[in-house]
Amino acid sequence: MKKAAIGIDIGGTNTVLGVISMDGNIIACNSIPTKTGTDFHPYMNSLIELIKKTASAVKGDVDIKGIGIGAPNGNYYNGTIEFAPNLKFKGVVPVVEFLKSKFNYEVIVLTNDANAAAIGEMIYGGAKGMEDFIMITLGTGVGSGIVVNGEMVYGHDGFAGEIGHTIFDPNGRDCGCGRKGCLETYASASGIKRTVFELLSSMIEPSTLRAVNYNDLSAKMIDEAARNGDKIALEAFDYTGEVLGLKLADAVAHTSPEAIFMFGGLAQAGDLIFKPTKYYMEEQMLSIYKNKVKLLPSELPPGDAAILGASALVWKELKKIISK
Amino acid sequence: MKKAAIGIDIGGTNTVLGVISMDGNIIACNSIPTKTGTDFHPYMNSLIELIKKTASAVKGDVDIKGIGIGAPNGNYYNGTIEFAPNLKFKGVVPVVEFLKSKFNYEVIVLTNDANAAAIGEMIYGGAKGMEDFIMITLGTGVGSGIVVNGEMVYGHDGFAGEIGHTIFDPNGRDCGCGRKGCLETYASASGIKRTVFELLSSMIEPSTLRAVNYNDLSAKMIDEAARNGDKIALEAFDYTGEVLGLKLADAVAHTSPEAIFMFGGLAQAGDLIFKPTKYYMEEQMLSIYKNKVKLLPSELPPGDAAILGASALVWKELKKIISK
Repeated sequence: MKKAAIGIDIGGTNTVLGVISMDGNIIACNSIPTKTGTDFHPYMNSLIELIKKTASAVKGDVDIKGIGIGAPNGNYYNGTIEFAPNLKFKGVVPVVEFLKSKFNYEVIVLTNDANAAAIGEMIYGGAKGMEDFIMITLGTGVGSGIVVNGEMVYGHDGFAGEIGHTIFDPNGRDCGCGRKGCLETYASASGIKRTVFELLSSMIEPSTLRAVNYNDLSAKMIDEAARNGDKIALEAFDYTGEVLGLKLADAVAHTSPEAIFMFGGLAQAGDLIFKPTKYYMEEQMLSIYKNKVKLLPSELPPGDAAILGASALVWKELKKIISK
Repeated sequence: MKKAAIGIDIGGTNTVLGVISMDGNIIACNSIPTKTGTDFHPYMNSLIELIKKTASAVKGDVDIKGIGIGAPNGNYYNGTIEFAPNLKFKGVVPVVEFLKSKFNYEVIVLTNDANAAAIGEMIYGGAKGMEDFIMITLGTGVGSGIVVNGEMVYGHDGFAGEIGHTIFDPNGRDCGCGRKGCLETYASASGIKRTVFELLSSMIEPSTLRAVNYNDLSAKMIDEAARNGDKIALEAFDYTGEVLGLKLADAVAHTSPEAIFMFGGLAQAGDLIFKPTKYYMEEQMLSIYKNKVKLLPSELPPGDAAILGASALVWKELKKIISK
């Protein structure tokens, strides 16, 4: 029987569950909506049903070793989701405790979604064999997972790795976290949209983006405009790379990684975002770090990265148990 | 026979060597000048003589287990000092290789001075039993050592932990590293001096510091003026704490430590620097980290911290060898 793990990605809109083999193949996949109200009990019951249903469908073919969960504000030590701004549930949700009361798997473990992506990159992606690297997820927000000496950095409280909330400009843009000028307000899908609007006001060049209102504007449109040579869109990517490059240079001065992987919608813009980010990162880096740190696209398949990463948590945890 | 380790601190002016017992007592201490020219060979020969002389003086009383060295731009992996701006030697100095050719100790190990201080804090100081903490040294420059999961973060290349060279303001003050706006240009002894001169120009309050020229002004004078209620000096400490607090909030978002220890001349200003730093750090921290991170003075004795830290490297290394 093939060994497999269940990977669960709890997102703002949907929760996706996959049964993933040790070599990273998706054996089964299912989903339920996440937003069911402020009380998490009905949601947890749906999730438990989903796990039971999916596990029993593959029974006989695979031996499921555990459940790994990636979630916003996921706390590895407590197995909880704590005050996640993008989820409707209020306060602290004891996800792992709930699942442990229903299932007997050796490993049931949870961490934040960016940490799960980092572990996915380490087990299935481009970070195989790397001891020190950083994963940056450029989506609606900016997440990060930091790996040092081959281990995930969870920190004292389980919440380490929030590079998206390091501050680029203390007098800068309002952030959803309540502060000002966080990296996330510049280097995310919504960040580049804000940059476009700033440039539409400060520059006089014509641009197709002048015909689009704020609500309708998407990162994809900015990407397309840039590919058509639109000066505002190109400048927006350059500025995004400048801010991101500067804060990545700061991140390098903390843990000096072998590589930084970029993942998520904005990372899919390819050279448009990688080139300026690399340029400004090198320019702003302390000389001892220059031309050493690889800036790489994630090798995880975009659609399935979250459940792959979540399932990879299980193998990482089993390795820890064996080495003890 | 008591077990002991040799701790060597290579500073810009002097090299200090101590024979330190396992419980942190200094059995013998000696020093030589560091600056002897751009060729490091005469210096290395003096250092070797110093080690031999000191070791033979304590022979019979102690069993020396190894040599630990703290040095600016010290590379743990290579055992080298690489392009240190404060030392006269040019290029890469293979310190450990040289010492290994002359001595048979089980451990001969080198790292940068701030990392050595962090390990000293872990073995002899306030970080005993802590798995995740950061050491910040506020001296002529700003150094740092980061500990994660109980291990020093050396990074991919051995140069991790340069928080003093994270950037506060990309258009800010010229830094000795060739870039602009590094934390070090604000939060060091020379940084607060620069802040005083900025404030002497922007503020109109009378100040005893208006009678002192740039060359003569010391951090100690600013400390004394502040204690006498001098508004410029007090504002300088407040601003230093604001910049340091902001960059420490960024550091917390990377590794989420249990505590941050501050060490060095400026840290000895006590509340004058700790209060504003703590205030602004809390103010600028992401909500999940607030009121969790202790900001503490180092518990290492100021005069001997460097050699204590360097000697502690030996015990840390021996533990690693045993656990393998």
